Amino acid sequence: MMKKIKIIGSGTYLPDNIIESENLEKKFNIPKGWSEKYSGVKQRHYITSETGAYMGARALESALKYAGIDYNELDLIISASGSFDHPIPHNSCLIQNEMGKFDDTIPSFDIDSTCLGFITSFDTISYMLDGDRYKKIAIVCSEVVSKNLDPNDWETQTLFGDGAVAFIFGLPKNNETSCVIAADTKTYPLGSKFAIVNSGGSTFPSALNQSSEYYAFKMDGKKLIKLAIEHLKAFGTAFFDKLPIKIQELDLIIPHQASRVALNFFKKTFDLRDDKVFINLESRGNMLSASIPLALHEAITNKKIKRGDKILLIGTGAGFSIGALLLEY
Amino acid sequence: MMKKIKIIGSGTYLPDNIIESENLEKKFNIPKGWSEKYSGVKQRHYITSETGAYMGARALESALKYAGIDYNELDLIISASGSFDHPIPHNSCLIQNEMGKFDDTIPSFDIDSTCLGFITSFDTISYMLDGDRYKKIAIVCSEVVSKNLDPNDWETQTLFGDGAVAFIFGLPKNNETSCVIAADTKTYPLGSKFAIVNSGGSTFPSALNQSSEYYAFKMDGKKLIKLAIEHLKAFGTAFFDKLPIKIQELDLIIPHQASRVALNFFKKTFDLRDDKVFINLESRGNMLSASIPLALHEAITNKKIKRGDKILLIGTGAGFSIGALLLEY
Repeated sequence: MMKKIKIIGSGTYLPDNIIESENLEKKFNIPKGWSEKYSGVKQRHYITSETGAYMGARALESALKYAGIDYNELDLIISASGSFDHPIPHNSCLIQNEMGKFDDTIPSFDIDSTCLGFITSFDTISYMLDGDRYKKIAIVCSEVVSKNLDPNDWETQTLFGDGAVAFIFGLPKNNETSCVIAADTKTYPLGSKFAIVNSGGSTFPSALNQSSEYYAFKMDGKKLIKLAIEHLKAFGTAFFDKLPIKIQELDLIIPHQASRVALNFFKKTFDLRDDKVFINLESRGNMLSASIPLALHEAITNKKIKRGDKILLIGTGAGFSIGALLLEY
Repeated sequence: MMKKIKIIGSGTYLPDNIIESENLEKKFNIPKGWSEKYSGVKQRHYITSETGAYMGARALESALKYAGIDYNELDLIISASGSFDHPIPHNSCLIQNEMGKFDDTIPSFDIDSTCLGFITSFDTISYMLDGDRYKKIAIVCSEVVSKNLDPNDWETQTLFGDGAVAFIFGLPKNNETSCVIAADTKTYPLGSKFAIVNSGGSTFPSALNQSSEYYAFKMDGKKLIKLAIEHLKAFGTAFFDKLPIKIQELDLIIPHQASRVALNFFKKTFDLRDDKVFINLESRGNMLSASIPLALHEAITNKKIKRGDKILLIGTGAGFSIGALLLEY
């Protein structure tokens, strides 16, 4: 299924407001160091007055600058976030509104597969970039998680962070080899409600429920890790069975920064050396769909990745889904 | 951009609960016939205990039966709705959960462009169907609008309806000509907040706001129609300028069932005969993303469309966006 596609720029927006785990531990009266040890997170960014659309627009501006292209050269903008500013409309048009370029009529829509949004969107647009209708496409992941956390649930309070990332994609030139080598996702719907925000949709409209039982992100971590244990190994084996390369031979692996427990389990499952797995969980927290692209952006800007490298993006998402995308950068 | 793609089945789920405009008019103390005259809606379906995922799964089952294929033959399920059951997870995995087929791991994700979800998804998968990884793809539009209406706003109360539609797509056989001839969408972000549900996302989490000012769907009808008047004609002209066919020569046009005013304006803009434009607004109401596919399904099952016919799907959506897809059925 090899699909020609090249990352031509990326950018981020992280709120100035940094929340230290040490302060959360004091607040919740839990032992110093608990968060770093169990969640794997020492600090994370939280919004103050920013919206998801605002952060997404700033990240997109930064990515456009990096790519050296103008906004109106984009043929499509996809917002691939798990959180959103309003139930209606979709976030992509709100990001466009925040860009303030009202004479441009670039088509846009949202793709939502919660934490796998970047992989799903990258995979999808690899079929769409045809050099004709679609020459340049932007994917924006902008997550405001902090507003939907239960104020009394330190497991989620210490885990998640806010922020935005944008990537610009185009076709490689004739002599360039950038591509998606393979991609796959599997959804295990038995786990569809193991990670949930109950209210705010049509099942529990926001009018009816003020309790954190409803509005807050609820995660059955044990059931999620059980599903991952059951299926991750088989998923990875099936993915690489069709390919002439082993996971251990890749240049870098960028997993979803789900939690320290999940990352340790992931490395163990595939017998991966620490230096092969990019981790920024400690300073960023789990940022839903923004985790994988932020890690990819940081790996690129820190020169951990060079053109021609083979990189695996892999993660789990609410659904319960496992998704992976193998790219040549 | 011609893309080979064939509709191989469709199905619907409409709740048993029918709400007559006459009764709404009594309730709101507005003149008898007001709803039919202005909204264009005489009756619509409202859910009782159904969820969006439940209706979506029943519509999908019906579409699979019509297509004569098994669930596990699907390679991808896209939920393309504007409303959703929960902010997290995305609705596609909840639909899969409602299908109850827990041994199948079909990938799924949501596409959201509010009322244009079906056009966006149809357009997107026309690039993905490769006869290899993607042989059969389902798009499900399931909308619960009734729960997010302001109980005192008769303009929206009389306009919207609930229900679900599913379509199954595959590749045409060698001797078949089914395809997407052309598709385009433009987003005019000046109108990004002219149709909005404020609370339930991260800007106004559901915890904070119980007033209908926040949770209810708000529509600035005047501003929306102004944007449509400004841009619809130019959008349509640009769309057909590239094609060897005029809009008046098509076999059938299926517009989004936005409202009577919008439909009349649409017909006038493109100088269309009544029998060329399929309308089911009177009995269904505006069903967001489900309006266009439900009308398409009804046109197919009522034999208003035969293989080889050229059909235009066209609509406006929150965003503000205009989208169109010209298909050979």
